[in-house]
Amino acid sequence: MTATLPAPSSSLMPTLAGRYYTDPALFTREQELVFEAMWCCVARTDEVAAPGSFRRVQVGRESVLVVRGRDGGLRAFLNVCRHRGAQLCSEESGQVTRTLRCPYHAWSFGLDGALVAAPNLARMPDVDRVANGLVPVHLREWLGYAWVCLADDPPSFEDDVVGAVTERLGDPAAIEGYDVGRLALGRRIRYDVAANWKLVVENFMECYHCATIHPELTDVLPEFSRGHAAQSFVGHGAEFAAGVDGFTVDGSVGFPALPGIDQDRDRRYYAATIKPAVFLNLVPDHVILLRMTPLAVDRTGVECDWLYAPEVVAAGLDVSRSVELFHRVNQQDFAACERTQPGMSSRAYAAGGVLVPVEHHLALFHDWLRSRLGEG
Amino acid sequence: MTATLPAPSSSLMPTLAGRYYTDPALFTREQELVFEAMWCCVARTDEVAAPGSFRRVQVGRESVLVVRGRDGGLRAFLNVCRHRGAQLCSEESGQVTRTLRCPYHAWSFGLDGALVAAPNLARMPDVDRVANGLVPVHLREWLGYAWVCLADDPPSFEDDVVGAVTERLGDPAAIEGYDVGRLALGRRIRYDVAANWKLVVENFMECYHCATIHPELTDVLPEFSRGHAAQSFVGHGAEFAAGVDGFTVDGSVGFPALPGIDQDRDRRYYAATIKPAVFLNLVPDHVILLRMTPLAVDRTGVECDWLYAPEVVAAGLDVSRSVELFHRVNQQDFAACERTQPGMSSRAYAAGGVLVPVEHHLALFHDWLRSRLGEG
Amino acid sequence: MTATLPAPSSSLMPTLAGRYYTDPALFTREQELVFEAMWCCVARTDEVAAPGSFRRVQVGRESVLVVRGRDGGLRAFLNVCRHRGAQLCSEESGQVTRTLRCPYHAWSFGLDGALVAAPNLARMPDVDRVANGLVPVHLREWLGYAWVCLADDPPSFEDDVVGAVTERLGDPAAIEGYDVGRLALGRRIRYDVAANWKLVVENFMECYHCATIHPELTDVLPEFSRGHAAQSFVGHGAEFAAGVDGFTVDGSVGFPALPGIDQDRDRRYYAATIKPAVFLNLVPDHVILLRMTPLAVDRTGVECDWLYAPEVVAAGLDVSRSVELFHRVNQQDFAACERTQPGMSSRAYAAGGVLVPVEHHLALFHDWLRSRLGEG
Repeated sequence: MTATLPAPSSSLMPTLAGRYYTDPALFTREQELVFEAMWCCVARTDEVAAPGSFRRVQVGRESVLVVRGRDGGLRAFLNVCRHRGAQLCSEESGQVTRTLRCPYHAWSFGLDGALVAAPNLARMPDVDRVANGLVPVHLREWLGYAWVCLADDPPSFEDDVVGAVTERLGDPAAIEGYDVGRLALGRRIRYDVAANWKLVVENFMECYHCATIHPELTDVLPEFSRGHAAQSFVGHGAEFAAGVDGFTVDGSVGFPALPGIDQDRDRRYYAATIKPAVFLNLVPDHVILLRMTPLAVDRTGVECDWLYAPEVVAAGLDVSRSVELFHRVNQQDFAACERTQPGMSSRAYAAGGVLVPVEHHLALFHDWLRSRLGEG
Repeated sequence: MTATLPAPSSSLMPTLAGRYYTDPALFTREQELVFEAMWCCVARTDEVAAPGSFRRVQVGRESVLVVRGRDGGLRAFLNVCRHRGAQLCSEESGQVTRTLRCPYHAWSFGLDGALVAAPNLARMPDVDRVANGLVPVHLREWLGYAWVCLADDPPSFEDDVVGAVTERLGDPAAIEGYDVGRLALGRRIRYDVAANWKLVVENFMECYHCATIHPELTDVLPEFSRGHAAQSFVGHGAEFAAGVDGFTVDGSVGFPALPGIDQDRDRRYYAATIKPAVFLNLVPDHVILLRMTPLAVDRTGVECDWLYAPEVVAAGLDVSRSVELFHRVNQQDFAACERTQPGMSSRAYAAGGVLVPVEHHLALFHDWLRSRLGEG
Repeated sequence: MTATLPAPSSSLMPTLAGRYYTDPALFTREQELVFEAMWCCVARTDEVAAPGSFRRVQVGRESVLVVRGRDGGLRAFLNVCRHRGAQLCSEESGQVTRTLRCPYHAWSFGLDGALVAAPNLARMPDVDRVANGLVPVHLREWLGYAWVCLADDPPSFEDDVVGAVTERLGDPAAIEGYDVGRLALGRRIRYDVAANWKLVVENFMECYHCATIHPELTDVLPEFSRGHAAQSFVGHGAEFAAGVDGFTVDGSVGFPALPGIDQDRDRRYYAATIKPAVFLNLVPDHVILLRMTPLAVDRTGVECDWLYAPEVVAAGLDVSRSVELFHRVNQQDFAACERTQPGMSSRAYAAGGVLVPVEHHLALFHDWLRSRLGEG
């Protein structure tokens, strides 16, 4: 977010109009111009650690395979056989030896995507093995996750993804301190939210609702009860309440701070949104990463990962109190989003609603979206 | 219905074409030009008797709140928070003390709709409490029901609602005799009908089907077996069969006639349709009021209320035999409507079907509809 | 298929583009221009053997009644009352005495379709009994099945239906030998396939997949493992493997060959596709006939009949081993089709896939379809 808000002439600024949250045609354009054009975070790299292991993920309207090669490299392909179009892999994850073999006619593709075998292929010498290979998808690794982009010519990963975090934390070194790529998955919870994806983003970006729906969170982070989101100030982290010993559902002590966390960050919560669909939450002893997948104009899948020091996970320590805090926050947020979705189609919201001063930064998100849709 | 039918040149007159019952775009226009433009009967006023009590009802495509004020007045509002669009009330009914409070960011609205409180509102002195208040909806009370109209400039309630009953009964005093507003709810049954709302209206307006599908009803009202609907003659009530003592499933005696019912009406059934979506049935000792809510081009919700003298309900007398009669009629009618819906999309019905002489008055309903849709 | 393929310049020929399998508007055109314009096989004639017996079947988007008249003739009508459009028969099959009576207003139609009775009809002398009769649908009988065509002016049954079989088998006498019309139903299985109907047709027309997904079938018919479909050579039947005694799941002996099967055909499997939606499989001792009903762009109903000599069925002999073989083939095929459907909407298949040489004859099906859609 390099754009800045103009000084508003009044306390209330407009939101997007209701149709942005209800029009299926607009949703299709978002799939094309947002989710199929930008970098999306799709899988943990340690979930596809062994050569031949793969995961099937949804990116925009496409099914994508993330595959570990025999050379150790991670690659992504559209999950479609080039022969007659069958899905190569219908299971969510799996392990092959040397090839991805289509279960319909046995066309087989190497882990680099090239066509390597098919019935009668020897008698078809004019068949180009690469031109008829799997369609590759751009892939980058960062923070221990695979990020893919369906665009032919992807935008800059450094600007769009890394830059979004740096800009929020105010310092490129800040995210390094958490060494997120080293962390291990302690818990994953999936949510199916009956609301447009932008309601989920807007909810995450503001804290005006925190005093109303997040009693546990505001007990730990008292400044949130005043409505200011951590995200509205560059480099600002919300401080734990006096008497709170950890980012847990009851404020009890968590785990030792991650090694790179200095005293400045030792009792603070930081958050960043990586558009279009990742929310990052940083506390001294763990990291919470949420990824959204828009499923329909009024339905969004969310996957939330709680990441801890690998020693914590390896030792089987009890992570339930820290998981419980943000799981409740998630449930409270998604219930609010689901309650908002029906209002989007009302004549009362045809021209949209209003943003109060502590929400004014949401207008930057709205401007960004309109710009992506070519309405800028 | 002030229009009159031209003398038909043959026994058969045309119906609406099949697409009127199957085209989703036409259904959307009906929502806009019929259900969101006319007076709709939405709730009993005694269901929202106490100050702060409310009901959430569906009108066209809108969720509407009917709320009793602290001043005793009944008002209606769109059920949408003006801030970010969340539904204020998601429960079907409830009771608040002084305000309707949005569960998302705690914007709170008085029972008159004005914005009265919100976090940080004191620091936003330029926020107009009325302009940012709930969107009001026109409301009238009649027959013990709240009627609402979403139009900015509603049609005449006296002409459209009261007038429809007067025209049918032939005398403004006729409906007064039942003193419907004084009656109490004895039973309510809801039906979910897999048919277009117009099939339900047409079914109610004619009695050509009575001999075929309503054995209990024609036992009580023998003239119905000849196919003439009570609704096709102004002021006409169908007379009970000799030996029938009440409007009950077995013709057994019901309750004493309502106080205002004179001898002329003491053994008669009267019916009226209040377009677009109310059916009124009047018998000496009770009143049956049906309300329809179109839910989709091929789905209609129907709520049927059986109303009795308040003493009958207060004493807990057994209403089951009168309820059973019309409940069976409803089930028989709605089964017929559901069986008709699939035929509407057949090429055999592309140009519609035909009306026999005792159904010719349905053509007035068709003309009225086409006129509302601007096709007149 | 009188068209012939041009000599391809390379091993790979193109398929249809993905949108042909996913676009609901194109599916609607197919319903109109294919299934409602051509001959469709809808019921066994022995299922409507007695006068007054009827079956309700789906043809394109229409519900059709096949009815045995009192004169012994078989007729078909649209299943819609001409009065107000109710479905005459909602049950799948049944038996009436002399008339089909609408359950709504009791209009009654003779088994020849003419209106014969209705309440008050005597007082409507100007009502034409035939013009207001049921809408007739063309019907032919062949192979023991009723075939209907919704077109006003149907295409030649001899060319389109009989001719398709003759062309495949290479000889008009070939099909006669099986005397299919004499056979009895031994087993019927219905499948609901989550795939476009054309994927089911294409699957049936080629055998390139046989080696991959049909182990039982290729054990019985070893040449199928080489990928050549019986359908790609005129008059060719695939020979049973040495050691195989019958077309059964384990190759064990079946029933005596049908009386008209000569030695040439005594150990061979023949197949024919009767476009748009019938697959015929002929083996010495039974016949398997599959009929498809497209239900949505991504959903197809399939009904598979196993037909045996009437003595076999009458004696209650065990048909399970022959049923099991093709039931497994069906399950294997339909699983492959269901796995292919999702890939049709991928950008990887936007321009379609490719046909290898043993699939090149599928291009004739694609050309035929485009021609029916007026794209030729």
